[in-house]
Amino acid sequence: MSLTLEQRCVHTIRTLSMDAVQKANSGHPGMPMGMADVAFVVWTEFLKHNPANPKWHDRDRFILSAGHGSMLLYSLLHLTGYDLSLDEIKNFRQWGSRTPGHPEVHITPGVETTTGPLGQGFANGVGMALAEAHLAARYNHTGHKLTDHFTYAIVSDGDLMEGVSQEAASLAGHLKLGKLIYFYDDNKITIDGSTDLAFTENVQQRFEAYGWHCITIDGHDRDAIREATRKAQAVPDKPSLILCRTHIGFGSPNKQDTASSHGSPLGNSEIALTKKGYGLDPEKSFHIDEDVLAFFRRELQKGAAAEAAWDTQLEACRKAHPEIVEEYLSRMEGRLPENWDDVRPEFPADPKGMATRKASGLVLDAITPKIPALVGGSADLSGSNLTKAQTAGIVQAGAYGGTYIHYGVREHAMGSMMNGMSLHGGVIPFGGTFLVFSDYCRPAIRLAGLSHIQAIYVFTHDSIGLGEDGPTHQPVEHLAALRAMMNVLVMRPADANETAYCWQAAVAHKTGPSLLALTRQNLPTLDRSKYASAAGTLRGAYVLNPEVEAPQAIVMASGSEVEIAMKAQELLQAEGIPTRVVSVPCFELFDQQDAAYREAVLPASVQVRAAVEAGIPMGWEPYTGSRDKVVGLTNYGASAPFETLYEEFGLTAEAVVAKIKAQL
Amino acid sequence: MSLTLEQRCVHTIRTLSMDAVQKANSGHPGMPMGMADVAFVVWTEFLKHNPANPKWHDRDRFILSAGHGSMLLYSLLHLTGYDLSLDEIKNFRQWGSRTPGHPEVHITPGVETTTGPLGQGFANGVGMALAEAHLAARYNHTGHKLTDHFTYAIVSDGDLMEGVSQEAASLAGHLKLGKLIYFYDDNKITIDGSTDLAFTENVQQRFEAYGWHCITIDGHDRDAIREATRKAQAVPDKPSLILCRTHIGFGSPNKQDTASSHGSPLGNSEIALTKKGYGLDPEKSFHIDEDVLAFFRRELQKGAAAEAAWDTQLEACRKAHPEIVEEYLSRMEGRLPENWDDVRPEFPADPKGMATRKASGLVLDAITPKIPALVGGSADLSGSNLTKAQTAGIVQAGAYGGTYIHYGVREHAMGSMMNGMSLHGGVIPFGGTFLVFSDYCRPAIRLAGLSHIQAIYVFTHDSIGLGEDGPTHQPVEHLAALRAMMNVLVMRPADANETAYCWQAAVAHKTGPSLLALTRQNLPTLDRSKYASAAGTLRGAYVLNPEVEAPQAIVMASGSEVEIAMKAQELLQAEGIPTRVVSVPCFELFDQQDAAYREAVLPASVQVRAAVEAGIPMGWEPYTGSRDKVVGLTNYGASAPFETLYEEFGLTAEAVVAKIKAQL
Repeated sequence: MSLTLEQRCVHTIRTLSMDAVQKANSGHPGMPMGMADVAFVVWTEFLKHNPANPKWHDRDRFILSAGHGSMLLYSLLHLTGYDLSLDEIKNFRQWGSRTPGHPEVHITPGVETTTGPLGQGFANGVGMALAEAHLAARYNHTGHKLTDHFTYAIVSDGDLMEGVSQEAASLAGHLKLGKLIYFYDDNKITIDGSTDLAFTENVQQRFEAYGWHCITIDGHDRDAIREATRKAQAVPDKPSLILCRTHIGFGSPNKQDTASSHGSPLGNSEIALTKKGYGLDPEKSFHIDEDVLAFFRRELQKGAAAEAAWDTQLEACRKAHPEIVEEYLSRMEGRLPENWDDVRPEFPADPKGMATRKASGLVLDAITPKIPALVGGSADLSGSNLTKAQTAGIVQAGAYGGTYIHYGVREHAMGSMMNGMSLHGGVIPFGGTFLVFSDYCRPAIRLAGLSHIQAIYVFTHDSIGLGEDGPTHQPVEHLAALRAMMNVLVMRPADANETAYCWQAAVAHKTGPSLLALTRQNLPTLDRSKYASAAGTLRGAYVLNPEVEAPQAIVMASGSEVEIAMKAQELLQAEGIPTRVVSVPCFELFDQQDAAYREAVLPASVQVRAAVEAGIPMGWEPYTGSRDKVVGLTNYGASAPFETLYEEFGLTAEAVVAKIKAQL
Repeated sequence: MSLTLEQRCVHTIRTLSMDAVQKANSGHPGMPMGMADVAFVVWTEFLKHNPANPKWHDRDRFILSAGHGSMLLYSLLHLTGYDLSLDEIKNFRQWGSRTPGHPEVHITPGVETTTGPLGQGFANGVGMALAEAHLAARYNHTGHKLTDHFTYAIVSDGDLMEGVSQEAASLAGHLKLGKLIYFYDDNKITIDGSTDLAFTENVQQRFEAYGWHCITIDGHDRDAIREATRKAQAVPDKPSLILCRTHIGFGSPNKQDTASSHGSPLGNSEIALTKKGYGLDPEKSFHIDEDVLAFFRRELQKGAAAEAAWDTQLEACRKAHPEIVEEYLSRMEGRLPENWDDVRPEFPADPKGMATRKASGLVLDAITPKIPALVGGSADLSGSNLTKAQTAGIVQAGAYGGTYIHYGVREHAMGSMMNGMSLHGGVIPFGGTFLVFSDYCRPAIRLAGLSHIQAIYVFTHDSIGLGEDGPTHQPVEHLAALRAMMNVLVMRPADANETAYCWQAAVAHKTGPSLLALTRQNLPTLDRSKYASAAGTLRGAYVLNPEVEAPQAIVMASGSEVEIAMKAQELLQAEGIPTRVVSVPCFELFDQQDAAYREAVLPASVQVRAAVEAGIPMGWEPYTGSRDKVVGLTNYGASAPFETLYEEFGLTAEAVVAKIKAQL
């Protein structure tokens, strides 16, 4: 039996994958074996990429949404010449390798997003395609196509079952994102067995209902893959789903088409049988024929040429429209306009004040014109979140140049799409919903923290202060639960000026998500001639009344409860107890300060302390010394006007005073 | 203009709703006004219910998934004679009322589930319909129909956009739940404005793709509503979606068909105009014509008759098959079989031991035959979660009598459906996935905690101990984030015998969810002749080595890290430091113990303490005294064999010893 070069290329993707999984004694060989034909065609005939420069701005994006098949992606990266050596492949899933169990964007060159939690990659890709369409609309009008690429993904039945993908698919169809092309690995097998156990819907019909263009093919027929991909590329106003009927564990005599090839090594003897069946030498491991490698490595030359052509275009554009190229590049490189924070509004003292969501809206009005990369939206709460800046145009199908996205009631897709937009580059995404619904998008927030992705969440209605909507809408444990995530800035400003600084911190925080917890109800705007500057917000916590030089007690709070802390301070002062008030808008930022600053704010010598927050007490202990010193909530809230709730639940200055006096 | 009685009945639903929202100066009038025709027809002509006994086992279930329209439901409950007075309607959204902003199942008689967070009610209903089908399959074979009811819901565009509803819809179609009938309030308006802003998919086509039976009607044409409902009832093997084209804020001259009628009071003058337009007296508030009330209150007689007929059937069945009726009633009443916990397996001491997920599977094998109400499943991780008991049959379309559900990769729908099954009664639901994916179903867990719903989660692969799958699959902050939720038992057993007691606690905990965090890797089964009985698990924390009578130090841990704590104890003991080891499987249960017990376990006199857990340290402070005393993780994990991870991340007995010695 004589194999063609192409056959050997495809089989090499398979053998590398099965060998690496076997050596690690852990991993998922079946999917790479099943999708090798599709991957081969896409990566060697369609994908516009430059393995020597994985960060080339106008590359096509390729997402392995079915992240468990990571060895498919690592095989492709190694073969086509990315900076991922064969030793890394041999170190699959080992300590310190660049080949972790599931792809991680911040670890491996050429990996576009972190996948594994199903559905996320699907929705990330929708975000990337939207970022592409947006940048194209903003910067291609001179005729120089600075942005012009496809977003491809391989998605699995698991991806399609997850709600987040369904939300994103509906929105992608609505937005007519024609340059989105997904290959569905329709292998009829899930971990539990046949997809018939739980997944018998008509996938094609569903996606057509969303407005997608669908083609069904044999996923091992490479000519059919070519033709379908070309057809998909030719449909400009619909995302495409190419349903590829494939065989998981392709070619494994005893494990093809079974769940047993999904998540475990095939075993040495089965690998030998499989290689023999392919017509390859069963004795060889991690083997790559020289001509096979040479064929894949053509991507380096093709990529260099493609990038050079784009460079020429960029330079031509720069000559004619230097300001356009400058703005485009500054966005793609994540540079902020100089002195962008000069436009941060300052709010005058006002005892009546305003809700911090309102202040946030005014900040957005001010900074949106200055920072074109800010592209935001809301999960159908625009008027409540106040996320739409006055100058922001609406993003719609065929009008992608706007900066405001109506996500619909799809919090999870919003979060995952923000991750995708951010990873694409050129966009600083923000999105709004109620704080209580942070639970709906939590998996996306976690991946942003884990993968160092900038994304800004505007979480309004941040406590029982929302009042009558009741416990289903009242976040109580959410601040604690969000602070539990690492590399996530959870910020809860106490007034309008702190809100402005929180936005400044969020925009500047390029390596992780930022969450703003904002009130529905009005808060006084503090008189900063009397109290310390709100710039202290940037350090996470700061003393509001430094004039009290030898405090006997410290009262701290975040957000709306700073007002209560200040009232408590007045009461204590009236009783002759000099008291410091510390505003704590962000635990994480405070924890990053040096020891001297932290000691200056919370001197070890003053252990008489209390904190007050309209949430569970958990999490404050490092600052108060114990949970008992926190005035907080121990129930899910109730439906009533918010003033009643604060009284009934004992979130009062008097309760804070009592905590302090009990310690004196 | 002369109005028919029927017209006045429908308008009364509308006027009560708009008056209550106006009086509260808060709420959502538009939806009740738009869906009053549908609600009237369903509640007075189709719904099998007995307002005098809202807990009648065989009532039809009615869910207002669009929970913001709560006044629609409260109006119906008052009008048809539930124990909800007109004063309660007038106290809408006020402190202490039974009419909170969004419906809460544990507060208001006749409310079947807590709704408001969109998509949840939709998925709850799928769970209820599945519970119905299951009970019918188990107990109707004698010809006596103990269980034979429909599950109705009103769902909104927001419900349909949410991922959780899409997951549940796909599964409902797969399972052919023909007695599920949903009315889609297709009013073309969302909070942001027209649904055209973000939601232009073909809903009917999508649901047909899932296998649903769809009918599109004018939602104000009551004859069409009647006919469509009859047709839906007549389709036994497909869930039905009746797409009702409606007008939000129906009849409001200036606000109908606008978002402004969605979430704010109409205003007194607009209310007057609207009532005038209806042909009603604009001066009257909270007014109900006597004949209107009488018409609605016929439901009391109809309901009493329906329940009496069912009682007759039940008694006939009891005569012929007393054991069937006894089992059925014990399930519906939430009674556990006597001495059910006698079957809890005891595992012999074994240094090699077993994974706690494995022990959990063996416990399920033992208790499943004894507790027929246990109906479980997994989100496509059956073989990993080990949730399928040997004797459990598979639930499939037309074969609902089984007790094992293949949920597919749909964690969120699983959680919400479990809530629905539990609320239906007759089922103690449990479901499995990896602990890291608790984030995907967190909104459902929260609602279970808030609404006192029993649901058991089997969360396996509970730490970096899962090894090579890497950080995307490694829960690190999840234990803390789940412990942050109130009325949720988060249990993490240290060995096989603790696992058995955790199951016992979970089955007995009828008023909230229980989460079992279980290992992938083997743990030694402790020698209980040497250490204290695992029965201490039921108290949340207990001393493993009470023979150390005057400890100088306490080391505590949960789950897999108890092994590390015990090694640390040996090392300390060898250095002459008598040390107590406390296993802490459940914070919540421990916090519920009396002060004497808590003091006995953690004596205030011993402040030299450390804890070790493969997660973030947050949350242990009340037991250790400070976060610094916790050996934990401060990163998202890594991909490598788990032994390497424990070493590299310093989760070792030596680290625990160092913590203790630093305090001595």
